[in-house]
Parts: sequence; structure tokens; C-alpha cells
Amino acid sequence: MEHFADRLLEAIERKGSPVCVGLDPLLERLPVDLSRRAGGAPAQAGDDPAEAAALLERFCVEVIDAVADIVPAVKPQVAHFERYGGAGMSAYHQVMRTAKQAGLLVIADVKRGDIGSTAAQYAAAYLKGPDGPDAITVSGYFGADGLSPFVEAARDGGNGLFVLVRTSNPSARDVQDFTDAEGKTLFQHTAQCVASLGEAGELIGARGYSLVGAVVAATYPQEARLLREIMPQQLFLVPGYGAQGAGAEDCAAAFKPDGTGAIVNASRSVIYAFRRPGQVEADWKAAVREAARAFAGDIARALGGT
Amino acid sequence: MEHFADRLLEAIERKGSPVCVGLDPLLERLPVDLSRRAGGAPAQAGDDPAEAAALLERFCVEVIDAVADIVPAVKPQVAHFERYGGAGMSAYHQVMRTAKQAGLLVIADVKRGDIGSTAAQYAAAYLKGPDGPDAITVSGYFGADGLSPFVEAARDGGNGLFVLVRTSNPSARDVQDFTDAEGKTLFQHTAQCVASLGEAGELIGARGYSLVGAVVAATYPQEARLLREIMPQQLFLVPGYGAQGAGAEDCAAAFKPDGTGAIVNASRSVIYAFRRPGQVEADWKAAVREAARAFAGDIARALGGT
Repeated sequence: MEHFADRLLEAIERKGSPVCVGLDPLLERLPVDLSRRAGGAPAQAGDDPAEAAALLERFCVEVIDAVADIVPAVKPQVAHFERYGGAGMSAYHQVMRTAKQAGLLVIADVKRGDIGSTAAQYAAAYLKGPDGPDAITVSGYFGADGLSPFVEAARDGGNGLFVLVRTSNPSARDVQDFTDAEGKTLFQHTAQCVASLGEAGELIGARGYSLVGAVVAATYPQEARLLREIMPQQLFLVPGYGAQGAGAEDCAAAFKPDGTGAIVNASRSVIYAFRRPGQVEADWKAAVREAARAFAGDIARALGGT
Repeated sequence: MEHFADRLLEAIERKGSPVCVGLDPLLERLPVDLSRRAGGAPAQAGDDPAEAAALLERFCVEVIDAVADIVPAVKPQVAHFERYGGAGMSAYHQVMRTAKQAGLLVIADVKRGDIGSTAAQYAAAYLKGPDGPDAITVSGYFGADGLSPFVEAARDGGNGLFVLVRTSNPSARDVQDFTDAEGKTLFQHTAQCVASLGEAGELIGARGYSLVGAVVAATYPQEARLLREIMPQQLFLVPGYGAQGAGAEDCAAAFKPDGTGAIVNASRSVIYAFRRPGQVEADWKAAVREAARAFAGDIARALGGT
């Protein structure tokens, strides 16, 4: 299968937009017309897991339909499905199948990580098989031997990885800003490890990017600029736009001057756009579509595009 | 429900042994008499997920039966179940139910972590409900706001947490030994964050231990001694004994002088004990039981007990 980085860059060019819609479905935030259970009452957290999972799946399938011609990729966040057990995981797989059938790339946000022998099991769980995603997010806290099984599975399957380097949350600083005697922070150190792990020739695609990418939040734009220099061969998955507070200009810091090298994700600000004040909820799917279009336009403008 | 730390300490005293058996079931390592599929051929990785999950479940149920009167707790490693999708997760839940019915505490090794809104979903997935474990392992890379939803769910449900501080793998040093200008390492810094996160009065049990514990590997005993000082109120979950190379003396460093404060885990060296050269595989369950007994005795001797 074609190298993940080449496939993602090609998909971004085809859609004319380096953005990704995050699928973080919450039962309590579904549109009213979707959240009615068989009996007519709105769904809630204590519901039967199979019923809840079916509603999440319907919502994500509709969101995919609404945004499929606008964005090159979606990012299902697996915790939202895992909380409904086996039924939730079936919904997660059905959502991925639907996205792929709609011509979208799928980045599964699973953030798994462990010692090597266990990481091999996670790689088998989340990268293998015809229903697997195109790429996953992984944790780097275990170092190289914990990442190797993911790298090998991704290389063999044509998949990509995004290693957590700088996360988007306020407390990221608690741990990730830990600094050595030379002024280097932990996130810079992690970035160097990621760059080194991903530099082997067999991991680099035709366009010069490695299958080993990095998660670099837009909520810390100065740092994204620095990380862009440390990791020239890494594709960045950029969270933090919208609900988490970063704007399009902040996201632009993750890109190279040629406009490549990153894909910006927005989840809640797009998929729950219909919950804005004054929005008529009956048009919820149109509101999601419009929010995806506005998001894509916002990023394109910040990158100096059309 | 009674505080997790008090329940664990009580269970350790009742069994007279601060050890835990890790359930990391691998299809390709099952005993021959368990690994036969319906047709008689040995099970293998490409098998039907439901069939594979059923075999893993049978194996774990037998292991639980073999060790239930020797150890106070088991630690199912969820990746081994996740790789078989919904069927695997059903097996994971059935294994936890079986362990609890046998009077064992369950520490689910899930190592989840994310930004707060997503961590709340993981907490709902892995801590809530009657079939949930007594405690889980979590990642600390996101800092305090990523851990808070886990802490709140654990407090409300009588559960415990073990935050990754020092992992047992060789590459742990790559990331966790990153050192500041004063000579403090990242794992020490993480330990300070964990100690601070867990010190609120409402999180401390009757015996003085917090529900927020730490993963501290036995493969780095000097460091375990240091971490014992930084985290006086933390229970340590100690991996690394046996297959990963640490001995009982190395594990002893994680305990306080009074012999409390830690629980040592062994997975592969116990559950695959029947695969040792010269072992008659027909007696596989007796071999597992004997290995658990030897493990418990080894740790007790290192702690100066009987």
C-alpha cells in the first residue's frame, strides 16, 4: 500500500484543505432528532450500551456525510466509543468503514503506549486488518522500544503514526515544559526522539515525510514553530483549534513555508456547531457542514491560500 | 465503598503476600489442551476473534482458579483483549467478574490518558459500572487536568489509580531520565506531581495511603528507593519481576520499612510457567500455581517475612 504520508498529502491537495474533523460523539450533545430512543425520550448516559452506541454511530455517519467533500480526513476519538464496550467498538469500526467508503482518510485517536511486548498487542488491535484506520496517535513516554512495534506494523501496513509531543491542554506545561540544564524542554527532547525514530529511509515517503509524525498543539504556537524546525520530516497532527481556543494563525505555525507538513483538527467546534445560540437545530447537519467549510476556509486564509 | 488503598492493604494482609499476577494472554502461548479449536487444530493469530477471545477467557479463568488463594490481586492487561475487538472486550469483562467472584482485587492495566474532556470518557469506560476493576493504570503526560477526571471518578467509586512514573522497559531511560539543571529527572518530577495530586485529605484512606498510586518498575531499584521518599502516600504497582529481569531484592526497594506500600506484579513468568524446559505441559495449571507460590515466597523472603 502507498506510504501514509504521500496518501495524506495527496488527499489534502485533492480537497484543497489541510484539515480534519474530529469525531468525539457524546450522547448528551446529539441533535434532538437523532437522540430519540425507540420510546421517544431523549437518550442519556445510563442507556443500554447497544442503543447508545447505535445513536453515536448514526450521528458520526451523518457528520461524515456532511463533511466528506470538504475535508480529507476524520479523526474518531476512541474513548467516546470504548465507554459503550463491545457495542461501542463495533460502532467505532462501522464509523471507520463509512469514512473510508466516503473516500476519507481515518486517523484513529487512540493514544496507546506500553512496553514493547504489549505495544505489539496494541498495534495488532489498532493497525492491522482491513477495517483498521490509516493512522493512529501513540504515547511516547516509554521511549523507542515501546514505539518500535507500532513503527514496524505501520511500515508493513502502509499506516502512519502521530506521537504525542506537545498536547493542547493547559496542564501540558506541568510535565512537558520540564527543562534541562541547556534550556531544552521535555517536548523538544521528545521531538528529537521522534525525528530520530522516523528518519530511517524505509520510513520516508516519496514526498520526503516520514510515516512517524507528531501531535503538536496549536494552543502553543511559538513552540509549534520551534518543533517544525526540530522535526522537518514529520507530519504534524494539530489539535487545539476552536473549542480549545487556538485560532487559524496559531495553527499556521505548524506548517512549512510551502504550506505542507500539517493537518489541523477541529472536533467540538464543528460537530456540535448546531448547538450555537440562535442556530435552528432542525438544520443541524447543514450547520455542521457550514462549520467544516468555515474551518477549512479559515485555515486556508491563514496559510495565504484562496 | 471502602477506600481502594485500605481494601488493597487488607487483601495483602489476608493473603500474607504483596503480589499480583498479570493476565497477559497470548493465543500462541496457551497450553496445548486449551488451545485446540473446535476442529482440533491449535489456535493461531488469524483465527475468528470470537473463538480466540473465548480461548483467552478460558485460560485466564483457569489461571485465576489456580492462584486465587495465593495472591490478593490480578492485573489483566487490556491490549491482549482489545486486539480481538468486541469479543475480546467481553472476555476482559468476564475475566474481571471471575476474579472478583474469587475474592480478588482487579487492577486493570489500561494506561489511558488524554485531555480532560476525553479523560472523562476513558474514566466512564474503565472505572464506572458494576463490572469495572478496582483500580486502573493511567498515563501522566498530560499533567493534572488530564488526570483530574480519573481522580474524581476513582474518589466517587472507591477505585484506585496507578500513574506511570517509572516504567520497566530498557528505553524508559530515553524519556524518563531527562534531567533538569538541579539534577532532577523527569520521573522524579512526575513523582512530585503525583504526590501533590494525591495529597488532598479526601483522597487518603484510613491507613494513610492515597487512592492515587504510582507505577514504579523494579528494574531500576536505586530509583525506586528515591521514589519511595518522594511519594510517601502512594501505593506502588511494581512491574519488572521475572520475565523482565528484576529479582525480589530489587522489588523490596519499593516498600516502606514496615513492609507496606507496594504490590509487585509478575505476568509472563507465572502464567507461562508451564512452558519452561522439562515441564510436563499436561500439568500446566499446577505449574502456574507453583510459580505463583514461588513468586509470593520470593517476595516475602526479600521483605524479611516468613
